Amino acid sequence: MFKSIIDVSSRDTDALGHVNNTSLPLWFETARNPVYKIFNPGMDLNPKNWNLIMVHTEFDYIDQIFFGIEVEIRTYIEKVGTTSFTVYQEAWQMDKLRGTGRAILVEFDFNRQETIEISDNIKEELKKHLYKK
Amino acid sequence: MFKSIIDVSSRDTDALGHVNNTSLPLWFETARNPVYKIFNPGMDLNPKNWNLIMVHTEFDYIDQIFFGIEVEIRTYIEKVGTTSFTVYQEAWQMDKLRGTGRAILVEFDFNRQETIEISDNIKEELKKHLYKK
Amino acid sequence: MFKSIIDVSSRDTDALGHVNNTSLPLWFETARNPVYKIFNPGMDLNPKNWNLIMVHTEFDYIDQIFFGIEVEIRTYIEKVGTTSFTVYQEAWQMDKLRGTGRAILVEFDFNRQETIEISDNIKEELKKHLYKK
Amino acid sequence: MFKSIIDVSSRDTDALGHVNNTSLPLWFETARNPVYKIFNPGMDLNPKNWNLIMVHTEFDYIDQIFFGIEVEIRTYIEKVGTTSFTVYQEAWQMDKLRGTGRAILVEFDFNRQETIEISDNIKEELKKHLYKK
Repeated sequence: MFKSIIDVSSRDTDALGHVNNTSLPLWFETARNPVYKIFNPGMDLNPKNWNLIMVHTEFDYIDQIFFGIEVEIRTYIEKVGTTSFTVYQEAWQMDKLRGTGRAILVEFDFNRQETIEISDNIKEELKKHLYKK
Repeated sequence: MFKSIIDVSSRDTDALGHVNNTSLPLWFETARNPVYKIFNPGMDLNPKNWNLIMVHTEFDYIDQIFFGIEVEIRTYIEKVGTTSFTVYQEAWQMDKLRGTGRAILVEFDFNRQETIEISDNIKEELKKHLYKK
Repeated sequence: MFKSIIDVSSRDTDALGHVNNTSLPLWFETARNPVYKIFNPGMDLNPKNWNLIMVHTEFDYIDQIFFGIEVEIRTYIEKVGTTSFTVYQEAWQMDKLRGTGRAILVEFDFNRQETIEISDNIKEELKKHLYKK
Repeated sequence: MFKSIIDVSSRDTDALGHVNNTSLPLWFETARNPVYKIFNPGMDLNPKNWNLIMVHTEFDYIDQIFFGIEVEIRTYIEKVGTTSFTVYQEAWQMDKLRGTGRAILVEFDFNRQETIEISDNIKEELKKHLYKK
């Protein structure tokens, strides 16, 4: 599991007094960086070298998140397939689960425009972060 | 169906040369404004008066979206339940479907902290925008 | 002058009940697209072809902006120099000036990593949008 | 001086391959949280209790910022007046200054809609973070 801490910004809140639904997709994208690094050790976000594409994201809003208290994002791997994998993420505030999300990504060769089979090395690395219920 | 036009911002793109996955959640939130207006004619985004909460969003990334060409967001109602409903949205660029999304919302009384049954008037209004395959 | 209409998003508001200060930089960036198009008719946001870099932005917050009412962004050229120029922008809501901004950009060759003198053609085009007090 | 570390998101980059100009306003807003806390120990972002309004922000873009390497934001107080003060901020990446910004805020009573004189206690606290050239 990868842990990252979010300092909630005034920008993340909305006029209802809590954090807006659009913050989870933004926070979770940032918190996926260590997963991206497994596939791209140089973190070179450039179509010549990058090897991941996003195919699906989803978010469940369980409880309100507020300004002024840090949020902890926990990032797990939920499933590893042949060419794709699922990231599962949780947002916690004050020891309470506030939201969850999933992202399905595919390993992809941008130059040849085709999917890549995830290597055994990477699979093993991903499995170190597997979510266990 | 509600139509809205997005002028893609440099901010929406990323170093892979296309629009980042986090733009769909942001664009679709804005494009849900006319749906919010059905429930909140005064658009008073204030917990004393607002009556909707978000419980789930999801996004499918079908094809790349690029800078410099406008994007059309089409917003439909997919399902209407007793207290909840589903918004279904599509992002089109150059007559090609690039991404879709769903948002499940619940009518909610923030003062009494309980769900509200969607009125027949609102149901009828929502059904004018029903998605037909 | 270039005009663009912003449909304020719940995302743009904050827990103080109004639009957050970070929305002006985002809205004004999008509203500079027609200026960018004068320099880049193909709007190819790619370091091989793009020819502008941002050197300074600033924003004055004059009055609160609210959700539910559209905002009009007015984009002018304020100054044209040899290699740089200044964009001046205003945000209006309900016929009241709410905020202004300036952006200083430099024409730049990313391949040779040097500034470019703005051509007479482009200067003329820019001057069609000059701000007059 | 307050230090905060930014994990650059793919969202922060643009198709030119570097971090977009709109990221500085967003990062600097978040990094001002400890300054906001001096005025609002409870961090209650609510017009009944909050006591700051933003009147001006500005940003100088000195050098490109890239994905994959953390950014350090340094937040200082530059000036303290009777009712207003200036925050000065710097963004560093790999020991190189990449951008700076200033924000002018006013202490303000939202209920009475009038400015407040900054107390001596707060002034003293602010001066602990004064920028020295």
